[in-house]
Amino acid sequence: MGQPQQPDGPPGERTPLRVGMVGYAFMGAAHSQGWRTAGRVFDLPRRPVLAAICGRDEAAVRAAADRHGWDSAETDWRRLIARDDIDLVDICTPGDSHAEIALAALAAGKHVLCEKPLANTVAEAEAMTAAAEAAYARGQLAMVGFNYRRVPATALARTMVEEGRLGTLRHLRVTYLQDWLVDPGFPLTWRLRREHAGSGSLGDLGAHIVDLAQFLAGEPLAGVSALTETFVRERPLPLGTTSGLSAGASAGTGAVTVDDAALFTGRFASGALASFEATRYATGRKNSLRIELNGERGSLAFDLERLNELSYHDGTEPGTHAGFRRILVTEPDHPYLDAWWPPGHGLGYEHTFVHQVRDLVHAVAEGTRPRPSFADGLQVQRVLAAVEESAEKNSVYTPVAG
Amino acid sequence: MGQPQQPDGPPGERTPLRVGMVGYAFMGAAHSQGWRTAGRVFDLPRRPVLAAICGRDEAAVRAAADRHGWDSAETDWRRLIARDDIDLVDICTPGDSHAEIALAALAAGKHVLCEKPLANTVAEAEAMTAAAEAAYARGQLAMVGFNYRRVPATALARTMVEEGRLGTLRHLRVTYLQDWLVDPGFPLTWRLRREHAGSGSLGDLGAHIVDLAQFLAGEPLAGVSALTETFVRERPLPLGTTSGLSAGASAGTGAVTVDDAALFTGRFASGALASFEATRYATGRKNSLRIELNGERGSLAFDLERLNELSYHDGTEPGTHAGFRRILVTEPDHPYLDAWWPPGHGLGYEHTFVHQVRDLVHAVAEGTRPRPSFADGLQVQRVLAAVEESAEKNSVYTPVAG
Amino acid sequence: MGQPQQPDGPPGERTPLRVGMVGYAFMGAAHSQGWRTAGRVFDLPRRPVLAAICGRDEAAVRAAADRHGWDSAETDWRRLIARDDIDLVDICTPGDSHAEIALAALAAGKHVLCEKPLANTVAEAEAMTAAAEAAYARGQLAMVGFNYRRVPATALARTMVEEGRLGTLRHLRVTYLQDWLVDPGFPLTWRLRREHAGSGSLGDLGAHIVDLAQFLAGEPLAGVSALTETFVRERPLPLGTTSGLSAGASAGTGAVTVDDAALFTGRFASGALASFEATRYATGRKNSLRIELNGERGSLAFDLERLNELSYHDGTEPGTHAGFRRILVTEPDHPYLDAWWPPGHGLGYEHTFVHQVRDLVHAVAEGTRPRPSFADGLQVQRVLAAVEESAEKNSVYTPVAG
Amino acid sequence: MGQPQQPDGPPGERTPLRVGMVGYAFMGAAHSQGWRTAGRVFDLPRRPVLAAICGRDEAAVRAAADRHGWDSAETDWRRLIARDDIDLVDICTPGDSHAEIALAALAAGKHVLCEKPLANTVAEAEAMTAAAEAAYARGQLAMVGFNYRRVPATALARTMVEEGRLGTLRHLRVTYLQDWLVDPGFPLTWRLRREHAGSGSLGDLGAHIVDLAQFLAGEPLAGVSALTETFVRERPLPLGTTSGLSAGASAGTGAVTVDDAALFTGRFASGALASFEATRYATGRKNSLRIELNGERGSLAFDLERLNELSYHDGTEPGTHAGFRRILVTEPDHPYLDAWWPPGHGLGYEHTFVHQVRDLVHAVAEGTRPRPSFADGLQVQRVLAAVEESAEKNSVYTPVAG
Repeated sequence: MGQPQQPDGPPGERTPLRVGMVGYAFMGAAHSQGWRTAGRVFDLPRRPVLAAICGRDEAAVRAAADRHGWDSAETDWRRLIARDDIDLVDICTPGDSHAEIALAALAAGKHVLCEKPLANTVAEAEAMTAAAEAAYARGQLAMVGFNYRRVPATALARTMVEEGRLGTLRHLRVTYLQDWLVDPGFPLTWRLRREHAGSGSLGDLGAHIVDLAQFLAGEPLAGVSALTETFVRERPLPLGTTSGLSAGASAGTGAVTVDDAALFTGRFASGALASFEATRYATGRKNSLRIELNGERGSLAFDLERLNELSYHDGTEPGTHAGFRRILVTEPDHPYLDAWWPPGHGLGYEHTFVHQVRDLVHAVAEGTRPRPSFADGLQVQRVLAAVEESAEKNSVYTPVAG
Repeated sequence: MGQPQQPDGPPGERTPLRVGMVGYAFMGAAHSQGWRTAGRVFDLPRRPVLAAICGRDEAAVRAAADRHGWDSAETDWRRLIARDDIDLVDICTPGDSHAEIALAALAAGKHVLCEKPLANTVAEAEAMTAAAEAAYARGQLAMVGFNYRRVPATALARTMVEEGRLGTLRHLRVTYLQDWLVDPGFPLTWRLRREHAGSGSLGDLGAHIVDLAQFLAGEPLAGVSALTETFVRERPLPLGTTSGLSAGASAGTGAVTVDDAALFTGRFASGALASFEATRYATGRKNSLRIELNGERGSLAFDLERLNELSYHDGTEPGTHAGFRRILVTEPDHPYLDAWWPPGHGLGYEHTFVHQVRDLVHAVAEGTRPRPSFADGLQVQRVLAAVEESAEKNSVYTPVAG
Repeated sequence: MGQPQQPDGPPGERTPLRVGMVGYAFMGAAHSQGWRTAGRVFDLPRRPVLAAICGRDEAAVRAAADRHGWDSAETDWRRLIARDDIDLVDICTPGDSHAEIALAALAAGKHVLCEKPLANTVAEAEAMTAAAEAAYARGQLAMVGFNYRRVPATALARTMVEEGRLGTLRHLRVTYLQDWLVDPGFPLTWRLRREHAGSGSLGDLGAHIVDLAQFLAGEPLAGVSALTETFVRERPLPLGTTSGLSAGASAGTGAVTVDDAALFTGRFASGALASFEATRYATGRKNSLRIELNGERGSLAFDLERLNELSYHDGTEPGTHAGFRRILVTEPDHPYLDAWWPPGHGLGYEHTFVHQVRDLVHAVAEGTRPRPSFADGLQVQRVLAAVEESAEKNSVYTPVAG
Repeated sequence: MGQPQQPDGPPGERTPLRVGMVGYAFMGAAHSQGWRTAGRVFDLPRRPVLAAICGRDEAAVRAAADRHGWDSAETDWRRLIARDDIDLVDICTPGDSHAEIALAALAAGKHVLCEKPLANTVAEAEAMTAAAEAAYARGQLAMVGFNYRRVPATALARTMVEEGRLGTLRHLRVTYLQDWLVDPGFPLTWRLRREHAGSGSLGDLGAHIVDLAQFLAGEPLAGVSALTETFVRERPLPLGTTSGLSAGASAGTGAVTVDDAALFTGRFASGALASFEATRYATGRKNSLRIELNGERGSLAFDLERLNELSYHDGTEPGTHAGFRRILVTEPDHPYLDAWWPPGHGLGYEHTFVHQVRDLVHAVAEGTRPRPSFADGLQVQRVLAAVEESAEKNSVYTPVAG
């Protein structure tokens, strides 16, 4: 995390950072919470201002502005980007619109925060990364929203890997298990259509775990071998307006055009082996992002369903007293924790968005490149593309491009 | 939780509820988060306004106002109470000032939210309860801040007990374990002085678990038998300004005048047995509030260090497939969860304060009595008094008064 | 555990240790397993011989001899004791007959292993302890069967306490929770009658946890304050022959004359506080003997339902990486483990009886006093008596005699 | 498990089943415990007799006979097989000798129990299966020792799958993690040489999890995609006689010729997806065989490090009270448990061998085919061969033959 420079003066008098957010569903609510809260908890060098929220449905976006605390509402993201009282554009729409909005925002001189996955295709992600690179030369920053890097426990895990506490890595095993598609009556929302979502479990859940694994390992995946599957191929059409995660169902049906589950194994450049599984059919698993790393000197394990804990085995200890220990990641010297509550008073899911804002605001104020960068997002996209290619080619081991 | 009436119109246009908060340390920060956030997440019938924050140190209270988002600052709580643009006074000071402030606020026609413990003595708590009762007749509400009733998992547990899922209760066992006093070099903060804190672990931690146990059981404790102990009787005096939970230490020492640990057993009116332990010397336990209830038909267990989980054993199931199940209390039909995130995306400690605000705002708008009431706080105080009396009288079983 | 001297020659040629066992129910089966197996796994200095088993019902005891592998059967324990081809008498009967059999066996020159609790009264236990002391002068050994000292995890815990890893002890909290009496239709077996069992949960479960707590702490309890309760005071009479733990039920009912549950708090001589709970009404808890010790330098926790694990918090570590670790107590340098399976291949309940035999055979061969001694059993009995006295005297703190 | 016919007469008078065992290392000790104990705990229709143990080193095999309780010793397995007082041959040697001994024993009219993996090659396994089939027509039985089918929790899991409690299976994820090769100084024992062990983690650990997954799913794997790796390619030569799992090391080094780790994904005939990982490099994991099954109606999870527990999620329950429950598999109606201890008194690793003997003795007495059969062992071998083939062919998806 580093030790950012300390700002002068009271927070209320600091230079504002005026944010325009596109999208107001699940991610919009989570990002709003982040923008509203970060400056109340952390001592930020600039003052986030929730300047404008944007969505196509005027009544709905006005209600969202009122609910989430945004100063104004727009119904056309091009108008939002054109406003000169916006410093940063925060993109919370489905993946199929990320590239267009991000490219326009960068072209308009804005900083950009873009939800994950960066894009639905490698080509889009490449264009976005090139644009971000060019924009950086002009002083603009771009970041992709892999928020799970900012759970205190995963941030601590990264630090411990960097410190060499695990030694040479041998294994990573990573799963992201949900179960909201088990019921074949669940309707065909946009998340189940390739044209909007790009892919299914792979892009939604797989993107998270590929990024987290590469972040923790500190190196990219070199290649993968993959199986994907769509268990339920026809689903009822949704009724009326829907979010991606819930909807009423109508009588007609339509084809599911994305994967329900993706399993893949892979090799890191260093030689470490990894296995990945992303699925929405793991009955009883609600949000079970689990990652375990085994190294020559130690191991780490994390489960998002218990996000205040990190499990650590110190392999250099005498076996008599060794064992996986449960670190309650709520101590003041743990990442992000100095600003929160006393030890043992846990944080929740949404805090990752507060931390994301904290780090992004520091980067903007200090002119440093934020991570995960668009290049990081592109790297994830390349892994996902290799997974899809391998799955199409009978699981043959497929190198990750780039 | 009941189903509160749905408000009309957008939140931004609803009648404001103007809050004045006294105190700005740990509890002040947590309450601020609650007041700021509740209306952004829940559809509240009135709009909370963070009108004024109050503390004795002018520079510090101004900084706190700026940090936490309060519109104005006061340095005298009497002035705060005298303001006619304040509807509700939120008391976050140490226990020795609760009675005076609460009585004055009620006399001034304000609603009152008072942090726990309600008071440092039964006499104060009785006076406060009487005043709250009289104020209620005038349309004013009073609530005490036992926030752990509003963890979704404990709220769910209460519902399950009410539904009869546990049958006749046989046992409760409750611990609240922390470890921040293990080091004898930790300084003598106000929490270790009887004149400010009233008692030690007993009033701080014990008050929480007595309230939670009585809340979950749905009945009061009838009597107790207690042991208390002060393990480290002299500690270094703190250096300069301190919060209760951390401080630098100076060369001089002073006497610890509160209990370090309190153990007690008790009987509920129904005949259920209970054991309680509150300590700040449980090395490695950071905030381990654990409660287990065993009934003739089932059992429940909860641990605050894993606050998104409730463990449930259904004793009416065939033994072949029975076992304690881990309910991840993040489903949309769980208490408070419809307004938050999808299943498996956990909440944290501070959410209890958001929920407290939600319920209190509904109570104010609807004119219903909020719980825990001052009478609930008084009942806890009477149990603590019985504990102290039993401890002084060689642990003899001591009925709870009232 | 110490390092016992290594025996010479193959096990099959070593001096036999001829055992006569009284009783053949649950404990008889467990002890048989211990006697049969110990010499097959450990390199014992003497060769255990299952010489004779004794019970009143001739057909049943012959069947038990055949089943469990005993060379002969007796129907009168006095005859068993009179046999000169018996070196050691192993007493597995209900507590009301322990004193008579043990005194006779010691008088007859036998070594004695007596199941817990040592006796049903302090007076009996005193007589037994005196007899054991006198017999020791004649070269006879006496041991009481608190087998839970010989779970590898508890033995490791004791070693760690002895090594000072916990520092000054502050707290012990100990529960032994079962649930087989929750159903009011469970019949009135001998375990529910004072004349046979002495007491209920207290003598059965409480005896185990008092011994284990004193063993781990390395010091005796100084005094206690207690509550006991009998929740269901009338139960159906059992049909026909019954064991203590299961039976059919008849139409008539009889009075339960023992406690269903016992809760007590206590102080150790060193000032450490302890809480105890023994019950047969903890729905869903099958054999949940849990013990946690908190010391100034560290903590330990154990749960008999996961008996291959010991949880350890090293309080001297930096908080950043500290946490309770789960030691899988299956390493070759863990107590008793060098003779068993590779790491991670866990042991079960009955292994405690194998370990008990191992240690007793070493003691006999080497002439050392085995622990727990009859004096240890007497100390437990005195604690139980103080618990009963306190419970009768309105929970007043009651010193432990002796 | 079925309900085997009840035997007549006391166990001691039943027809003996005379066993000759080849091998006396780790597996020999475990099997001895099984043969010695099964008839003492279960009411077996025939009486196991430990007739002869066989090994090449005469002094060592005599010591093993004495230690483990075998009536005689042989130094040539052909002599053992030639004896007409042997009914059953139990093969506990390394995999390279399984085929030769098993074929000879079947040819000599013996029943055969063969440790897993059935053989080092598919060709050997085919020959053994054919021979077993022919022998079955002559009344001889053959069984392979996949003992993890006989953990009560896995046996219960199989029953629950059969009962349809999981519905259509979607996912299995299976790992078998150990860590004894993490240290590059660990010597080159026979388990690391292809000529003796056939393969590394794959044949040792992978064979167990492939069998267990197919057993629980109730269907075979259709195809696999695999990665294998040897992390440490040179190791010190062992000093003197060694077992597979431990040894001193000498100055010279030799090549590791087996895999250190094997990862593979696969499809079951029904369309369920599975992932497998077998490794000896998972620092801190001692014997972590974990398996999770997700079906349309429910899920199950098991961890060999907590072998008395089965985790079950009933997906048909309302979400409000649903969650993974921990079934403590120690109830009298759980598989094998009626013969053991009261609820909550757990079993250990070696009990799987007792259960194996129990089931095999029933099969012999009743003339039924025991499972896992040699055909089951062959199916596992074919999966392992497909894994090796896929790993050699760049992970391409490879159908399982047969």
